[in-house]
Amino acid sequence: MNLNIALIGTGTIGSGVVEILKNNSELIEKRTGVSIILKKVCELDFSKAKKLGIDEEILTKDYKEVISDKDIDVVIELIGGYEPARTIIIEAIKAGKNIVTANKAVIARYGDEIFKAAAENNVNVNFEAAVGGCIPIIKAIKESYASDKIKAIYGILNGTTNFILSMMEEGMSYSDSLKKAQELGFAEADPSFDVEGKDTAHKIVILSRLAYNSMIPENIETTGISELKMPDIMYAKELGYKIKLLAISKLENNELDIRAGPVMVPIEHSIASVNNEINAVYLIGEQTKETMLYGRGAGKLPTATAVVSDIVDIAKRNKGYYTFFNEIKLKDQDEVMARFYLKFMLIDKPGSLAKITKILGDNNISINAAVQKEEDKDVVPVVVITHKSLNKNIKKAIEEIEKLDSVKEKPVYLMIEDF
Amino acid sequence: MNLNIALIGTGTIGSGVVEILKNNSELIEKRTGVSIILKKVCELDFSKAKKLGIDEEILTKDYKEVISDKDIDVVIELIGGYEPARTIIIEAIKAGKNIVTANKAVIARYGDEIFKAAAENNVNVNFEAAVGGCIPIIKAIKESYASDKIKAIYGILNGTTNFILSMMEEGMSYSDSLKKAQELGFAEADPSFDVEGKDTAHKIVILSRLAYNSMIPENIETTGISELKMPDIMYAKELGYKIKLLAISKLENNELDIRAGPVMVPIEHSIASVNNEINAVYLIGEQTKETMLYGRGAGKLPTATAVVSDIVDIAKRNKGYYTFFNEIKLKDQDEVMARFYLKFMLIDKPGSLAKITKILGDNNISINAAVQKEEDKDVVPVVVITHKSLNKNIKKAIEEIEKLDSVKEKPVYLMIEDF
Repeated sequence: MNLNIALIGTGTIGSGVVEILKNNSELIEKRTGVSIILKKVCELDFSKAKKLGIDEEILTKDYKEVISDKDIDVVIELIGGYEPARTIIIEAIKAGKNIVTANKAVIARYGDEIFKAAAENNVNVNFEAAVGGCIPIIKAIKESYASDKIKAIYGILNGTTNFILSMMEEGMSYSDSLKKAQELGFAEADPSFDVEGKDTAHKIVILSRLAYNSMIPENIETTGISELKMPDIMYAKELGYKIKLLAISKLENNELDIRAGPVMVPIEHSIASVNNEINAVYLIGEQTKETMLYGRGAGKLPTATAVVSDIVDIAKRNKGYYTFFNEIKLKDQDEVMARFYLKFMLIDKPGSLAKITKILGDNNISINAAVQKEEDKDVVPVVVITHKSLNKNIKKAIEEIEKLDSVKEKPVYLMIEDF
Repeated sequence: MNLNIALIGTGTIGSGVVEILKNNSELIEKRTGVSIILKKVCELDFSKAKKLGIDEEILTKDYKEVISDKDIDVVIELIGGYEPARTIIIEAIKAGKNIVTANKAVIARYGDEIFKAAAENNVNVNFEAAVGGCIPIIKAIKESYASDKIKAIYGILNGTTNFILSMMEEGMSYSDSLKKAQELGFAEADPSFDVEGKDTAHKIVILSRLAYNSMIPENIETTGISELKMPDIMYAKELGYKIKLLAISKLENNELDIRAGPVMVPIEHSIASVNNEINAVYLIGEQTKETMLYGRGAGKLPTATAVVSDIVDIAKRNKGYYTFFNEIKLKDQDEVMARFYLKFMLIDKPGSLAKITKILGDNNISINAAVQKEEDKDVVPVVVITHKSLNKNIKKAIEEIEKLDSVKEKPVYLMIEDF
């Protein structure tokens, strides 16, 4: 079976797709019966495309030429970002083309519009590469667990930040870790989208819509790692935890607790063993219990492998879009109950600690463990692990504690994710 | 889209399928557009089937009644074992039925015959549940990595033995661990198929045929765990290793090193963190690098979830059988190079150790580390970690060492898998 495709964009992932089709087309056809033919490539910079060995004859700078080509079955959008990606996708769908994309931003923001258009025009939109690179998490949720009710999703979904946190655990500073990530090509020149947790947030929104068949809004509670301090990573380690930028999406009584940010995870949990640039998704299903999928979440060939699998699936008519039939309420993040890690920098004089424990007690926060780090200084760190407490109580207590004369620096608090 | 199915066998997995269809049929249809209708159930013990709430009208004791029913699209074979499973599958295929099975034995032994018949009759045979329970490893290899060349597969594919090994690490004896596994329902009354590694061997053969598109023979080098001794598990732990019953299938220069048996794995490797009854598959692909899929490899609902996903896939026409177009030579297991763990029980007198090191040296085996466990006894254990050595040299040296008067008990040797 022949499948004619067009590529929009020949950046990192696009060049990976070209490379795989060049090297492994015969293998793909023997395995799947699908012969993928690259009919057109849209790229503003022809010299870039020609370096990949793409024939000038199939090159164009105008995406409309791709869309108006009646022979093309599938349009592969690999330019990323919101626009013109959205416009190209919508126009291509209206022209009856199937879509494959690796673009999490456009799917998170315009997914609803895109999938409605796809349903109306009876075409597929596949986006395996948008979350977790080559980890087949979209397929697992949509197909393998089609009969299961997912109860929770936990994800390490951003390689840049996971790499930085792994380096910091080894004692490297945040800025050196970020620099190393940039040198190795894991981090962008402007890393803010990654380190502020926005990329992670997009991805957990996409997975949650699929898993819960509900139109989860794009903007969820998101915290980054740029303000994380080394001592907290070290204290966490001593206490038996790792700090991970975790995407969390838990369904309880039809209320969804969804957020992305740094939390502490017990060191013996599988998710804590996911290091460096590796991504992982840990699912809890009613029938399947705990499952974890783990692999390269980024990079040219891993991501391009996911794109090519989406192309083959289109030939086999696998429907690759959301269906929304559930209405789910989002949990008020102030009402989240968890254990917390707190760190205060205290002036070492009698009564300092008593004031803090009083404020915690007044706010219904009870202490599981408290350690005053012995240091030969006037200001000493005090680390507290609480029992289960309400997020809003912690925030209120922290606000009050911050105002004490005996407290220097901004107090640190991190949720402990007990799974 | 309606899909009429028939179930053969209502044991553990069959009852799980019935339960899922009863509880989640509406969910499955909303998500996938496929309405699964249970048309017939073949079971010798009607009372067992009726307890599951199956209507007597659709019950039969004669599988031929299922096969001759023109309305049935898919036959779900869940009786296990070689026969009559093979006969039922082949006859059903010839009658134009698609097949879903969870039966690794029949696929490992008769896969070639079954898939040839399926191709001739243009039907699908899906078997996701046969390997790794609800872990979507068949789908990952066949679909997600359709464009990638797999270089190695490492699997913990038998929950019973992984559970026993995990208990032994905690200090429980082999027989107590086995008893506990049986009490918890992880192990059969006759556990030999599991503990001797045969189940693991079947599964790695199935995965390898898919990954390498080659007709790997059913019988591969297989060792069990029934002769593993507690001290070796403890010595391994001290040295930074875990002993796992690992399925290994590595392709190098078109030669396949395939085996199933206990090996030592470095404790920091992800596969070492897979404990208790959990299964995992660790893949190395040319494009995707390292991927790991981890989850429940057995149990009623996890396995039934995989069966139901196979049923839905048939409605979507996902081809679920092997295509063989590669010829691969199997590696002579004597020629495998690895580091080894050796343990000897030595009579504690001058010159005992020297004799052993001489035999090792004469067989081209060099020593990386040797520890004589200090014990106040006449016979003391000596543990040796070798540098990379040839399997056949190790075997020959062990044979010679076993004959020494100063050596009591059978020496122990385990390969160290360095990935």
